[in-house]
Order: sequence, then structure tokens, then C-alpha cells
Amino acid sequence: MNAVVYKGPHDVEVEEVDEPELQHPNDVIVEITTSCICGSDLHMYEGRTSADPGIVFGHENMGVVEEVGDGVDTLEEGDRVVMPFNVACGFCQNCENGYTGFCTNVNPGFAGGAYGYVAMGPYMGGQAEKLRVPYADFNALKLPEGDEHEDAFALLADIFPTGWHGTRLADLRPGESIAIYGAGPVGLMAAYSAKIQGASEIYVVDRVDSRLELAEQHCDAMPINFEEADPVEQIKDAHGSGVDKGVDAVGYQAIDPETDPGDDAYDPARENPAVVLNQLIHTVRPTGKLGIPGLYVPSDPGAPDEMAAQGRLGIDFGKLFEKGQKLGTGQCNVKNYNRQLRDMIIEGRADPTFVVSHRVGLDEAPEMYERFDNREEGVTKVLLEP
Amino acid sequence: MNAVVYKGPHDVEVEEVDEPELQHPNDVIVEITTSCICGSDLHMYEGRTSADPGIVFGHENMGVVEEVGDGVDTLEEGDRVVMPFNVACGFCQNCENGYTGFCTNVNPGFAGGAYGYVAMGPYMGGQAEKLRVPYADFNALKLPEGDEHEDAFALLADIFPTGWHGTRLADLRPGESIAIYGAGPVGLMAAYSAKIQGASEIYVVDRVDSRLELAEQHCDAMPINFEEADPVEQIKDAHGSGVDKGVDAVGYQAIDPETDPGDDAYDPARENPAVVLNQLIHTVRPTGKLGIPGLYVPSDPGAPDEMAAQGRLGIDFGKLFEKGQKLGTGQCNVKNYNRQLRDMIIEGRADPTFVVSHRVGLDEAPEMYERFDNREEGVTKVLLEP
Amino acid sequence: MNAVVYKGPHDVEVEEVDEPELQHPNDVIVEITTSCICGSDLHMYEGRTSADPGIVFGHENMGVVEEVGDGVDTLEEGDRVVMPFNVACGFCQNCENGYTGFCTNVNPGFAGGAYGYVAMGPYMGGQAEKLRVPYADFNALKLPEGDEHEDAFALLADIFPTGWHGTRLADLRPGESIAIYGAGPVGLMAAYSAKIQGASEIYVVDRVDSRLELAEQHCDAMPINFEEADPVEQIKDAHGSGVDKGVDAVGYQAIDPETDPGDDAYDPARENPAVVLNQLIHTVRPTGKLGIPGLYVPSDPGAPDEMAAQGRLGIDFGKLFEKGQKLGTGQCNVKNYNRQLRDMIIEGRADPTFVVSHRVGLDEAPEMYERFDNREEGVTKVLLEP
Amino acid sequence: MNAVVYKGPHDVEVEEVDEPELQHPNDVIVEITTSCICGSDLHMYEGRTSADPGIVFGHENMGVVEEVGDGVDTLEEGDRVVMPFNVACGFCQNCENGYTGFCTNVNPGFAGGAYGYVAMGPYMGGQAEKLRVPYADFNALKLPEGDEHEDAFALLADIFPTGWHGTRLADLRPGESIAIYGAGPVGLMAAYSAKIQGASEIYVVDRVDSRLELAEQHCDAMPINFEEADPVEQIKDAHGSGVDKGVDAVGYQAIDPETDPGDDAYDPARENPAVVLNQLIHTVRPTGKLGIPGLYVPSDPGAPDEMAAQGRLGIDFGKLFEKGQKLGTGQCNVKNYNRQLRDMIIEGRADPTFVVSHRVGLDEAPEMYERFDNREEGVTKVLLEP
Repeated sequence: MNAVVYKGPHDVEVEEVDEPELQHPNDVIVEITTSCICGSDLHMYEGRTSADPGIVFGHENMGVVEEVGDGVDTLEEGDRVVMPFNVACGFCQNCENGYTGFCTNVNPGFAGGAYGYVAMGPYMGGQAEKLRVPYADFNALKLPEGDEHEDAFALLADIFPTGWHGTRLADLRPGESIAIYGAGPVGLMAAYSAKIQGASEIYVVDRVDSRLELAEQHCDAMPINFEEADPVEQIKDAHGSGVDKGVDAVGYQAIDPETDPGDDAYDPARENPAVVLNQLIHTVRPTGKLGIPGLYVPSDPGAPDEMAAQGRLGIDFGKLFEKGQKLGTGQCNVKNYNRQLRDMIIEGRADPTFVVSHRVGLDEAPEMYERFDNREEGVTKVLLEP
Repeated sequence: MNAVVYKGPHDVEVEEVDEPELQHPNDVIVEITTSCICGSDLHMYEGRTSADPGIVFGHENMGVVEEVGDGVDTLEEGDRVVMPFNVACGFCQNCENGYTGFCTNVNPGFAGGAYGYVAMGPYMGGQAEKLRVPYADFNALKLPEGDEHEDAFALLADIFPTGWHGTRLADLRPGESIAIYGAGPVGLMAAYSAKIQGASEIYVVDRVDSRLELAEQHCDAMPINFEEADPVEQIKDAHGSGVDKGVDAVGYQAIDPETDPGDDAYDPARENPAVVLNQLIHTVRPTGKLGIPGLYVPSDPGAPDEMAAQGRLGIDFGKLFEKGQKLGTGQCNVKNYNRQLRDMIIEGRADPTFVVSHRVGLDEAPEMYERFDNREEGVTKVLLEP
Repeated sequence: MNAVVYKGPHDVEVEEVDEPELQHPNDVIVEITTSCICGSDLHMYEGRTSADPGIVFGHENMGVVEEVGDGVDTLEEGDRVVMPFNVACGFCQNCENGYTGFCTNVNPGFAGGAYGYVAMGPYMGGQAEKLRVPYADFNALKLPEGDEHEDAFALLADIFPTGWHGTRLADLRPGESIAIYGAGPVGLMAAYSAKIQGASEIYVVDRVDSRLELAEQHCDAMPINFEEADPVEQIKDAHGSGVDKGVDAVGYQAIDPETDPGDDAYDPARENPAVVLNQLIHTVRPTGKLGIPGLYVPSDPGAPDEMAAQGRLGIDFGKLFEKGQKLGTGQCNVKNYNRQLRDMIIEGRADPTFVVSHRVGLDEAPEMYERFDNREEGVTKVLLEP
Repeated sequence: MNAVVYKGPHDVEVEEVDEPELQHPNDVIVEITTSCICGSDLHMYEGRTSADPGIVFGHENMGVVEEVGDGVDTLEEGDRVVMPFNVACGFCQNCENGYTGFCTNVNPGFAGGAYGYVAMGPYMGGQAEKLRVPYADFNALKLPEGDEHEDAFALLADIFPTGWHGTRLADLRPGESIAIYGAGPVGLMAAYSAKIQGASEIYVVDRVDSRLELAEQHCDAMPINFEEADPVEQIKDAHGSGVDKGVDAVGYQAIDPETDPGDDAYDPARENPAVVLNQLIHTVRPTGKLGIPGLYVPSDPGAPDEMAAQGRLGIDFGKLFEKGQKLGTGQCNVKNYNRQLRDMIIEGRADPTFVVSHRVGLDEAPEMYERFDNREEGVTKVLLEP
């Protein structure tokens, strides 16, 4: 079958690979109908991880069940399903406690597994015609038959729950104000989640106007362009003592506003991995909470300095303590949210598809990776259709 | 009346000062029966803050009501009371939400007030014969008449609730394992709180054997001396994958175990303000939580480097994120806990007095400050009796 | 000044009464701009309580501060404020824990106080020109100057928070389904609150079509008319296994659908005080939660049977237990919600005024009481303007 | 193999039955080392349920894994395990949310399954030599090898978690006071759990002195004999305004204290199924919470009146509402607690074995059922050893 294969930095190709097979009684094989490209795929694509060539990408997967293991009870051939990007067993202590992003069984020696991702276990990705899904009763979420809401449901694999997760890590409550740094797909989903949950004011910070426009239009957010002025000051000008809650939907590849932009293109030399964390600390009021779904890594070969290369960042901890803030981090436990978000989509209460910019065939994956990696304006979220 | 007055770095004296008077209908005047010296008083004593000479110290105060304002409803002359170290109004948004350590009314321009502390508002300290207590219905906790449990109740002003707060910030649940860095009064109270709450394993880390012995004896804790070996390794040797929860009861004046001890005396040159935070991140397992009642400051004139001088610390944030940890910080909201802890003391379910090493007259304050500041072995907690 | 005075069953009059005066340093006097008639006023009006003639009604009050006690810190003459219907001290254990509806200081011997209500303490009601507000820093919520949002803000005194409270007692989460019994003002506010909080499906049960239409139109709710068919069956037909959560916004004067309607008028002979509770138990799925803001009383002289007269009701507890349901009851602690709801109104995220049917002068109060008591169609919520 | 078989009311026999076999890849077969008799077995034994003859009893089971299905990943032959009484799949919505007592997959048409219990699914009980355990990775909790703590671990199948559940349903917090009705095994475990969690005062209500002595001796509880005086009055005499929390560990076969005892033997004619619920409502203070793990049933052929026969009970709901109480019900979700309680046993922080009165061979089961059913003094908890 065809699949998107990583060949080396800035190089993916669509190649013929072996079809997956049932390996365990609790497995199913899913024929993929949609698999998305994720911002976190770019970390591998850019060579900022230890990913070896040969890996099949794709952790945002949905499709139709094609083959069912003997131990699977609730799925049948033909069932339409979407899979959390996390691979999880369902019975370790972390899974039991809802931390399905930190399963201790599926990726020995580490807490957490995923499809098609470096160091996340032996799970082939779904940017391919088929996918093996382990512990399928636990990992596959059933969807209504047919092809309605295909784009919206595809976003249940990762970014809609991950954006939602940001607001939950920040413990957002109805009527509160919130600032979200980053208007990429996750930031937009966080802003949209904040709107659904009844936030009274939503500030979204980015430097790309088209993304800020999406935030304004679909999330009732106030756009804050950090290249126009200090975002902390902009938000405090609008909302005196600081907002109640904050979300970091940027992560370690954050752009420092104080660096000279030169031109508009994305420039790794402008990265400052702690800049958003510190902006958040200053943006959120005393006793507020910070939700940090944006990725931080314990080792970054491309970091701007030696300390950051080991994942150690200069954080304004004295100020954070003085303000009595709390923060929550970590990748999303998708199963905590995907049922409820699915039901909101079905009932017409949520429609996250405004972030989708492209739906293309699998063969266009190499081109789309390149354009997405260039942060090309208008390329927000790409869905692949094998 | 007599009071302990700050004269300059490493210099306090007992001097005659004006008696406090009722300034507002909700005030009471309390005749102090016990006021404790707190580790955080040493930050001022050592000149590590911007405290000006003339300030009267003392934020851990108890006594008997002597005079009652017209607006006070539930207190009468003769009532025995203990005051949280926080001064709070009871009706701002933070107070309403239980964040009485971050009251926005009592110290204009800042969230939080306290007695006898630099930058915490115009409230004279209680290491004196008398104390004015604002919003007294809200700030004074009534105690049973008489003099029973005097030492235990005095600890309700700060360190027993603050230790307890550490375990609550870490969201400790019965049956969990916990590591507590620091066996000073707050660390010991955190360990004792963990025991009361049903922790299954309690590790306490320090370098002073007599303190570790208190932890072992009174808190059923496993003592970890960080000068003998890396505390992270010691705890992981005993408890494989990392403990469930962690508490930092040290703060920014942490000693780096990798520095050469020379001798046993406390040596500011050995400070490394982020060392305990990073040890905690490595000690606690994925999905675990860190409670950080230990003090961090946004500005430290005596810091070991320029970054730390501005409260910016090098934190292993990549590892923290990978583990999906959460953390909570900030000074204790004493009113969240002091009723319940009082009731446990009355019913004989809790007795925190094992940390009290000295009860002396007010005139001995200068000597005790000096000995406490020298981290003299055996001087754990000093109570002053005016 | 003029005030609405209770003269006896089905009889209120607008009469001259003494103006309120400051009685305590923490009091303010408020000039009333709006005071609403509440469904719970009808319990007194109908003689279903032990209210004595002479009481001034009105617990949903807003206005402008006219006179300020010496101990009040955050209010000034001219401030526009709305008061929770609860009178609360702010410093008893219940107030501290957020249970301001169960204050133990303001109404000795009882937990909870209110303005203008039988057995709720010595607080004159606000259906009058002026009102004394005790513990004013705690009990008065500041509003933006001017007269914008007057109707919406008036609803912050009781029914918007009370409807919201119903959803919080039921612990509603985004994406869940909920059934709300009763489409009077509180039921409509509960449905509207559910919509704001992201419920995926909202069922509202009543027998008055115009109320069900409001629910459909403003709350995106599915209307269920219980006189057409068993509401439990209707909801289960639409939503198989039972909804996730339920709210009882009816209380003890519930109409039994199985009684013969005769005609459409409200008929006390049709009351069955446990009917809604039991419908809820059967409507909500196993592990679901029931929020019960609807009033139940420990003594009801007009009850249909002797057991109910003592507040003892026949409840399907075996079924509730088998389903492992939880339930929460009690009058709303308005201060838990009024700030956040105010902010949603200011930011345009919430507008509860669709329930308001009448705004009239104080002198029309007697007529409006009569029409409201007759459950006249179209009389949903009456605002008095002294 | 031999097993305890129900033959009809008041009649069980040890008989030869077929050995269980693997039926699904996720099954294991466990060789039973201990299986306990539970108070809820008596409901079947007494003919108070619709149980048909032939059922093998036993839902409190532990033993050693003997045979392992192909799909089981974390268990091996020889592993020592204890099983929650609930049978649960691990992947339905209720299991995902932690409600493993309400699994919707294991017992079609009902929420919840169990071993050896009427209407709880096709799962043979464990009062036998062997037991089939479905979804074994999820349902079997691993124990340390050997035979240490055999009695304590056996109690992890049901009563220790169920007693603990009572305190969690009541949301007990450290320092609070709590009243527990019933000093049978579950009530004693609730009292012991309250002690571990730091309750400041624990009242235990029963009529059997030897049970009350256990509560006093092992749980630091105040014993309240309800045949000596009204238990509500006794508790309020000791603790003025009512206790903070309450637990009903009795259920529907409650004895009405107001009936004439005649002699001390258990007399079904004295049952009043709502009496404990109403006592709890009056014992607990306003805003308090009631945890109800004691069993209530939707249909009771032996009920004292027709209403109760249908599970409808006369509850003082008016008083409950006036007090703003909350309540939680339902059988325990054992997996919520069994890990942490196991760890407390291993670390020596908990030892629940004081409730065990007998450990006997399987052949003595008929005699022990009879003595336990007679509420024979000194027969608190019987463990069978096949």
C-alpha cells in the first residue's frame, strides 16, 4: 500500500510499504479515509528530533474498520471510527486515571505512545491506506455511518481535543477571560473551545493576520498581533489586572517579538523557547492558571543555546510564585474529550472545520509538507485522503 | 509597648513603640500571647529584601482580644484567637474564591497582605505586646478559652497550614507516595500533613540529621540526606518510577548538593535557586503534581547570577512537559485550612508541636534570630512570649 | 416611602412604611431602581407559608447606593449595585466555603437569610423605594454606571444565578445532554445556562406552550409538553438510555400529569410534590446527576396528604440507588455565580432578558401578583420600578 | 470442582460444578485462595431477591492465575490477584469515566455486572475452587507474591473499597466530623477509612455492642447505640449543630429504633427502609453531604408496605432541601480505590483485618451462611478458603 514515508530532513515521499496485519486479538485494521498533517509532524520533518528515515507519518487518523481481531467486542467490519493520536492500553494506572496520553504499557520504558511518531512506540502512522489499531475497543471512537462531518470528525484525533485540553489545563470557567498564545490549529481550537465553554473575553496572540482573522471571526476573539506591540501590554491595556487564564499553544519553537523580523517568513533564528511561557506569566492575573499544551522537549539539537538544548528554560518563576499561579502541561489525553466533542459536532453545537484549509490526495503530501513547513499563509490545516 | 524592630541586616532589637489603636470599625486589638519567628523573617533579617529599618516583625500571631471595633460582630473582649499571617478583606474576588493570600484590597497595587512584612501592606507585626487586626470577624479564628494547646494553635498562623498547603497544591490523595524537599518547619509540617492524609510513602529530603530524625519519628517519613547521594537517585532506588507527588518546602535559597560543603555551616555561596525545582521534576513520576509553597521571589539582590537576580530560573521545562506534570505555587491561603486543623488539634487527631524547639520571652528575640539564622542545629521553631 | 406589603393570603397592597436606616457600620442604604416578583413570593402570597401580614416583599433587588456606613470600604454614594437575594455575613464557616445561602450569622438559629421573606431573618424586602443592605462590601455587587442592561442585571439577584445553580448542582459538562423540568423563569434560566455551558442536547419539560417556545427559541432546547405524553418516555424516545444530567426547576408545587386537567388553569388539586423528582430519576441515566434548585419545604399546610405536609415525600430511592445517581439541593448561593454572569452580560456573551415579560411601576404590584399567581400565559417575569 | 450453590431461601450447599474455561482471549482462570461471604449475599440467601436456585455465590475473590487467554498482556500464570466484585469491560463510557460499577457492556440491558449475583450478568461466583475473570488485564489487581496480607487483600474485593466509597460519596475532608450508620463490615470499613483520611470526629451508630466496640477500638469512633436513645439526639448532644458528613452503611433492611425490640435477635418485622436515610438528613448539618453505599432496591418482595415494595421510600426531602444537602449513592466502583488501598496495606498504613472474624474451609460455608444470617454476635466477616 502507499504511505507517507520520512526520508530525512525536509524530505517525505509517498512510497509502497507493507500492509499492516492483525498482531494481537484486540487489534483492528482500519482503512483510512482521512489522515491529517499536524504541526508536530514538522518537528520530525525539520530534523529537530531523533527520527530515523523510514518512519511512516500520521497520528490523526480516521477511517472504516476492515478487519477485526478475535478479542474485539464492540467493533465490526464497516464501522466508521476516529482514533486518538495516543495509543493506550486502557488498563495501566495512568489509563485508569484518564491519563491515556501517558500509558505505561504501549511503549516500554516511556509514558505515552502514538502512531507514526519518533520515540512513541512501534506504531506505524496513518498517512497511508491502512492502519493497525491496538486495543481497538479502547482506542477507536465510533462515528455515525456515512460521510457526514468527515472533516470535523478527523479533527477529533488531535487538534480539537488538544485545543480543548489547553482550556481544561487552565481550568477555564464560564465568564472568565482568557489569553491564548498561538493561532495555529491548536490555538484556534483552544479559542473555539473557550467560546463554547462561555469565556467572557478571549484574546488570541499571533503574528499572522489571516490566522488572527479566523480567531476573530469564528471564536469571537480579540486579535493581538505581537509584532505590532508587546502582547502583554496590549492585553493589559484592554483588561487591566491581567486575564483569569492563559493557554500556550505555541511551544518551544516560539518567536521572540524582540528580534528583528527582517521579512515575514518564518525564521528559526528568531526562536526563544521560553518567551511565550514568560509572556503568559505576565499576562495572567494573580491566582490564575496556565494551560500548556504547546510542546516542550527535554532535548533539542537545534536550540538557540546550550541550556535550551537540554530542555532547560529561563522562566520567571519568582513572578509566577508571587502571583500564586498554577500550571498544567503535557500532551492531550484525547479520550477525555473526544466523545463529548463528537456529540457536540453531531448535534450541531460545534463545528471546528474553519481551520481546515486543504483536503488533498495522499500523493500531494510531499508538497503540502513543504508549504505547511514554510508557514505559508493560508495553509492552516491539511487533510490527506488516501 | 515593646516590640521586635528591624534595625538593618542581621540586626533586630526589642524597642519601645507606639501601641496600636482601632482605626476602622472592623478592627480589634489583640494582646499577643505567642508570636513565632518564621523562616521567611530571615529573608528580611539577612537583608535579602528591600525592607527598611523600623519595621516591626511578626506574622504568626495569637492572643486575646482586648478591644473591639463597632462593626465587629462575633468577637468580644477576652476571646482567644489566632490570626492567619495573611491580612485579607473577605470580600474581594480573590477572597471570595478562597485566595485570601492574594487579597486585592488590603495592600493597594498588590495581591496579598501580611503583618510585619516588607511590601505586604501597612500592618505592624505581632512580635510585640499588642496587634491591630483588621477585618477581625474574617481574620481572627476563635480558639477554646484557657491556655491549652498554646504552642499547637500558634502554629495555625502559618507553618502548619503552609505545610498542609504544600500537600494540597500537590493534590495528594490517600495511598499515594510523596517526596518533600526541605525538613525545616514547613517541610516537617508538609510531611506531617501527608501522614494525616493517608500517604502511603513519605520521603523527606534535607541535610540536617536532627531535622530528618524529626521527620522519621513524627511523620513516619523515610529520611533522605542529600549530601550523602543524589536525592533523586535515592528516592528512585526506593520507589522505582518516581513518586506520585512532590513538595518544595525549600524555595529559592536552596543548597546545591553538588557544591563542596567545606563544613556543615550554612553557606550562601552554595545556593542554587532552581535546584530543588529541578530535583522535584525528576523525582515525581509522569502525570504527577508538584506543590510549591517554598518562597520564590521576582527580585533577589543576593542571587548567585544575574538571571536569578530577576527571579528568572533555569527550569527543566522540557522534562516537566514530557511528563505531563502540573504545579501549583504561592503563599498559603491560611483560612482554607485553619479551622479544620484547629479542630484536629482540639480532638487530639493532630499535634504539630514536635517542631517547636524554643519558647522564650520577647527580650530574647535578638539572640534567637541570630541562632535561627545560623541554622543552628536544634533551633527549628522559636515562639516568642511577650 | 412606598412598599409592597403582604396583608394576607392573595392580598398585597402598596403602602407607606418607614424608610430604612443604617443600623451597623457595614450597612448601606440603596435606592431601588428595579425589584422583581419571584415565583417563591407566591408561596407566601398564596398563604402556603407561615408569613404574617405586614412583611414587605422583594428579594431580587438592584439600585443605587444612597448612604454608606462607616465600616464600608468599597462602596460610595452613587454606585450602582445588585444584591443577591441571600443576606450573608461573609465570615461564618458556610460563607467562607462559598455557601452564602446558608450563612449562620444573619438569621440566628437557622442557616440562611434573605430580604423580605418569611423565616429568613429581619430583613425588609426591596419592593419598595429603599433597602438596607447589611455587610454591604460583601453583599452588593458593583455594576457599570448608567442604566444599560438594567433588566439583565436585575436578574442577577436570583433567577439567572438560580438557574445556573441548577446546572452546577447537576455538574453539567460541555457536550452532555440535560433535561430540565419546568419552564418558568428558573427553568428557562437553567436551560439558557446549559446552552452557554455547551450542553449538546437540552430538553425542557412544561405544559405551557408559550414557555416551551421561549426555551426552544432562546435556549436551543427541545420542548417536551408533559400533558401530551409521559415526559420520561418522550425524552427516552429522543435519547435512548436517558440523559446525562437533570434539573428540577419546579419544586413541591408540581403538577401530576396523570391527573385530569379539566381545563388549562392552574389547579392546586393536581399537585403531587414528588412527581418531578421521580420523573427526573427515571429520565437521567445511570451515574447521572440531579440538580434540584426547585423549592421543597419541611412543612406545607396545603399539602395533598399528611406525609407531604411534613415534607416527607415518596421517592423512588431504590431506582436512584440502582442507577448510582447523585443529587444536590438547596437554594442558590448567588455570590458563587453573579460576578461571572455579570461579566458575560457586559461582554455580550449572555442576555437573559428574554424571560422578562413586564416592567411596571410599584403601584401595579397588586395586579401583577394576582396575574402571576394565576399562571396567566405570557406573565413570565415581572420587574417593579419604584 | 466444589462450589457454594444456592438451593433456595436459607439453603446453600457445597456441590460439584463444572470448572470454568477460557471463553474469550481476554479471560484468565484464577485458582481461588480466598472468597468472602458478603452481607449482600444474604439478600439472595434470604429469598429477598429473584435469584433462582443453582447460582454459585461469591463476588469477593482472590487467588492465583492458572490459565491466561491469548489477548491478556500483563498477567502470567502464578500471579497473585484480587478482583473487584464488579465485572467491567474497561472501555464503555462509564468505565472510561471511572464508573466501573456501572459498565454497560458486561451485562446487556443493565448498567453493572458482578460475579455470582442475581441480575448482574452471567458470571459464576468465586466461592469455588476456580473463577473465570473476564477482561482480566482490567479486572485483576496484582498483589505481591506469597501469602502475606491474605486477609487484608481479600477485603480489597469489596468491603474496604465500599466503606471507603461511602466516605468519598460524602466527600469527607480531613478535619471534618462524620456520622456512620451501621457497624457491619461496610460501616466499620467506612469508619476506618474516615480515620485514615483525618476525620476529626467519627460517630458510629449500631445496636450490637461488639461491633460498636470494634469501631471504638480500631477507628477511634464514638459508639452510638440506637436502642439506648435516638441516635440523632445523641450525636447532636455531642456535636451541636450536626456533623459535617454522613454515611449510610445500612441500606433498606434498616431496623426502626422505635419498634419494640422484644429480644435482641434480628427481626425483619422491625424493618423500616427509610429510617436511616431520614436519620442521616437530621444528623448532618446544612450544606453537608451524605454518602449512601448501603443497598436500596427498586423492588423488594419482602418490604413492610406496598410503596416500599416498589422501592419508593418516604424521605424527608423538605428538610434535606432546606439544609441544602447533597447525596451520592450506588455500588462502589472498586477500581477507583483498590490500588491505593493495596499500597497502604503493603506499606503498613492500613490494616482492615480487624473485621475478619472467621476463616474456614469451603465446606463450612452452609453453616457460616446460617450463623451470619442470624446476625450472630461475633460473626462479622467470614472468609472461605477453597
